Amino acid sequence: MSPEAQWYTERYDGSALQLQVSSRIHHERSPWQTIEVFETTDFGRLLTLDGLVMLTSRDNFIYHEMLVHPALYTHACPRAVAIIGGGDCGVLQQVLHHDEVRSAVQVELDERVTRVAEAYFPELCSDNDDPRAQLLFIDGIAWMEQRPAADLDVIILDTTDPVGQAARLFSEDYYRACHRALRPGGILVAQSESPLFNLDLIRDIRRRMSSAGFEAVSTLHFPQYTYPSGWWSVTLAGKGNDLEGFREDAVLNEGLATRYYNAGIHMASQALPQFMLEAL
Amino acid sequence: MSPEAQWYTERYDGSALQLQVSSRIHHERSPWQTIEVFETTDFGRLLTLDGLVMLTSRDNFIYHEMLVHPALYTHACPRAVAIIGGGDCGVLQQVLHHDEVRSAVQVELDERVTRVAEAYFPELCSDNDDPRAQLLFIDGIAWMEQRPAADLDVIILDTTDPVGQAARLFSEDYYRACHRALRPGGILVAQSESPLFNLDLIRDIRRRMSSAGFEAVSTLHFPQYTYPSGWWSVTLAGKGNDLEGFREDAVLNEGLATRYYNAGIHMASQALPQFMLEAL
Repeated sequence: MSPEAQWYTERYDGSALQLQVSSRIHHERSPWQTIEVFETTDFGRLLTLDGLVMLTSRDNFIYHEMLVHPALYTHACPRAVAIIGGGDCGVLQQVLHHDEVRSAVQVELDERVTRVAEAYFPELCSDNDDPRAQLLFIDGIAWMEQRPAADLDVIILDTTDPVGQAARLFSEDYYRACHRALRPGGILVAQSESPLFNLDLIRDIRRRMSSAGFEAVSTLHFPQYTYPSGWWSVTLAGKGNDLEGFREDAVLNEGLATRYYNAGIHMASQALPQFMLEAL
Repeated sequence: MSPEAQWYTERYDGSALQLQVSSRIHHERSPWQTIEVFETTDFGRLLTLDGLVMLTSRDNFIYHEMLVHPALYTHACPRAVAIIGGGDCGVLQQVLHHDEVRSAVQVELDERVTRVAEAYFPELCSDNDDPRAQLLFIDGIAWMEQRPAADLDVIILDTTDPVGQAARLFSEDYYRACHRALRPGGILVAQSESPLFNLDLIRDIRRRMSSAGFEAVSTLHFPQYTYPSGWWSVTLAGKGNDLEGFREDAVLNEGLATRYYNAGIHMASQALPQFMLEAL
């Protein structure tokens, strides 16, 4: 390995993130993508798919908490939850921390991502054998279209970037399928990329969600160092749910163990910078 | 220039930021430091001091607005403002946008930084000839110690990292000199580095401010892609000012042109993540 090769590099928009790597401990080509795991010097383990950062041990908690808790605490009583993508199981774990949840289905196309996570990120997979959890390794698009109507309370789109396979998970058609599968009062939440780099996409996501029948949309933002621009967002959409307010008492009283999310952050993450307000 | 050399790289804590550079348009060694300006492909111009990012054209607005507006709108009527450091004049410009300000003194050790900013970042220096502005090129420590007591309403520490010359600007002694120079109701605000990388420092800054006599401290955070970890903070300290509330009506009615700051962001940036609440 040359000195330069000891830095993992992900480039985007005339910039790049580098993480110092001590070794590559896993590499495979699944039917869907190249899956790699690296030991880094300061960020714990690094999981990449097709050369793009999925997560590091050090900072995945922010993304996983912010994709799950705002949606689940905004819902009145989230019993049936579906996760599309999310093969590393970090979102599933956060969902299962909610006692109201009776069933949590993770629908990941690539079983190998989950098997690699189980081997190299066991701390994210500790709840996979919870009897409320179901892990499916099938296409999340067909699965959603085959749901009975009004079957789910919360749908979480924990997808890769909107290119290749994942692009269809950002389409109005897919949001419509999600809308149909949600019960009244239901919430769809999608990871929605970087406020700095992907403002047009965030706007498109919000418009497509509205066109698909959701009455309310809300974008939340938070720092996420190892994703492009170090700044990330999730977008919520409500079906018969205005997304106003949340179960603040439950946040304060349930004592869910979190490292980023809390009641203050729930409200604060919805406050958009001026340039986003003007663009959206 | 080799292909690799076309990427400016700043490394920290086992990670690095890279910005794609099309050319280096300025380079000098001042008596204090190496000053460079680069044209980047996607971030406009890049100013570095001793190889560390000071700002890019594309994203400096977040840092400059967040260092200035929360402090100035928390103060009841900020008439006399001092900026320590801040040679690029971006903070001075934001300060001068406040009509209440009668005098704004920028105390920068290295005149060359300001001259380079005037040449390469004229958009930050557009207000330098405002009659309320005074640019001094002297040591900000001696200057503060020689202030009359109760002379200033707001002091802004727009410093480089707490190493070398700048380290003394993070000391309890310096905060005590600032406290002395502030009028009752006054506010000191310091850039306070990364919540992800420098949590111990943020805690130290807060403790030193309290020890120096400030009754209230408050840390605000915001994304800042081109600073280490893509996430940054400022810390406010109040002298006879509890830092509770702010002139929200003024924010809403004055129509200050901002791109990041607004009333919602003012409040939201004070909501700390759980790990910060527990650490601070």
